[in-house]
Amino acid sequence: MTSSSITAIHSRDNAWVKDLRRLAQDNGAYRKQGRVWLEGDHLCRAALERGVQPAVAVFAESLWPSAQVEWGQAAPKVVVLADALFADISGLESPAKMGFVLGLPEGRSPQPGMAAVVLDRVQDAGNVGSILRSASAFGFRQVLALKGSAALWSPKVLRAGMGAHFALDLVEGLAPEDLAGLHLPTLVTSSHQGDYLHRAELPWPCAWVMGHEGQGVSAVLQERASHHIRIAQPGGEESLNVGAAAAICLHASAAQRALQTGR
Amino acid sequence: MTSSSITAIHSRDNAWVKDLRRLAQDNGAYRKQGRVWLEGDHLCRAALERGVQPAVAVFAESLWPSAQVEWGQAAPKVVVLADALFADISGLESPAKMGFVLGLPEGRSPQPGMAAVVLDRVQDAGNVGSILRSASAFGFRQVLALKGSAALWSPKVLRAGMGAHFALDLVEGLAPEDLAGLHLPTLVTSSHQGDYLHRAELPWPCAWVMGHEGQGVSAVLQERASHHIRIAQPGGEESLNVGAAAAICLHASAAQRALQTGR
Repeated sequence: MTSSSITAIHSRDNAWVKDLRRLAQDNGAYRKQGRVWLEGDHLCRAALERGVQPAVAVFAESLWPSAQVEWGQAAPKVVVLADALFADISGLESPAKMGFVLGLPEGRSPQPGMAAVVLDRVQDAGNVGSILRSASAFGFRQVLALKGSAALWSPKVLRAGMGAHFALDLVEGLAPEDLAGLHLPTLVTSSHQGDYLHRAELPWPCAWVMGHEGQGVSAVLQERASHHIRIAQPGGEESLNVGAAAAICLHASAAQRALQTGR
Repeated sequence: MTSSSITAIHSRDNAWVKDLRRLAQDNGAYRKQGRVWLEGDHLCRAALERGVQPAVAVFAESLWPSAQVEWGQAAPKVVVLADALFADISGLESPAKMGFVLGLPEGRSPQPGMAAVVLDRVQDAGNVGSILRSASAFGFRQVLALKGSAALWSPKVLRAGMGAHFALDLVEGLAPEDLAGLHLPTLVTSSHQGDYLHRAELPWPCAWVMGHEGQGVSAVLQERASHHIRIAQPGGEESLNVGAAAAICLHASAAQRALQTGR
């Protein structure tokens, strides 16, 4: 095992610290910096379990003595920060005292024929994170975000994703035309047309499209969809949260496959 | 139509304004003040549609001239605030420029035999709001929050609930013993025991229990549950967001009823 290089930093004015603060607090900074900030042991462990190699492991001074047995060799470089400095960098109310910096995974293209979830300008980081978790749980291996969706590798979406990022192929910044190459039936939820989900035959593999919290799926994608599906809401016409709707739809696809294959 | 009394306020130091700021920004303030702050026209409209009578309608000065036709008679008292003052009170990045103050709906007790969702220390306001929307959509008419759950009438949960609060009977601050009087089969999700949801026969009416984001449903409630239900996750062992899991379970109950009654 090679040993990591260890650097201690105490100054707020350190240039590397300034960049890290931006990365941890500004949702779009990862695009400029080409790297990602993962805070907390749950996220960091999820990344390691999926074979991710962090560039730098960062610790608060007070955690470092006890953390170095488990984490000391996780990255080629270790940075130990004064606790106040770590707290200042962290975007969290209760800073986790440890995190990884990793290179932004390379931009991919949509994979033809691979079950997908399409995010059509879904705005809220918590919703996007929840959808990534559902996609991963229900066997949708790629998530394709159209321009205008929340930044997938932002600290907030990473936290809400709870590690699902590392189990999925993620593509962002897409235009509706880019979905043509998927060669998959495309399903959208609708309040007024199509079969009810609990009666529908769902194609597999497929692409489910989830839309903007206020506006829903765009007219273009509604028109291009091969299936319009309704979720029966006997309690009334309240619309569901998009993360809730996604969970119901993705689970329905997985459940139907399980029943067809006798599981 | 009686006319409303109109008061204009420009001072941050006004005592009523100070209380309102606390109500809008402090999640627990509604309990002390016995009243609730609803911000934005969507929420306010949802409340009016359900027959709620606000005590005060509050407007930013710049909105008031155009708003008074629709909203001027919504409450017996109107307060018009300088825009900067409204923005200062609002907890939102983009203040909505209008809101209602209403009396905190009276504390209720769990209703025996009425389909319910139980929140066992669910922490995140976004998750709680999403669960309230799902409960309302799928015909669960009461939501029962155990001590330690997010404050149901806090501004954040109200925003995430998108009006579902006004379609439900809400009870909070309960202890596990308080659920005994429900006289309903109690369902919990489990990762390791019970039937798979897509194969299970679900009782109706029932109470679904949704647990703490990190710890899940407490051991006491796990033991008392009449049904343990698993959600098949063919993509791996990632756990779902609790709002997603709730949506899947509540929809399954509604879908099963729909199929049984031929809808």
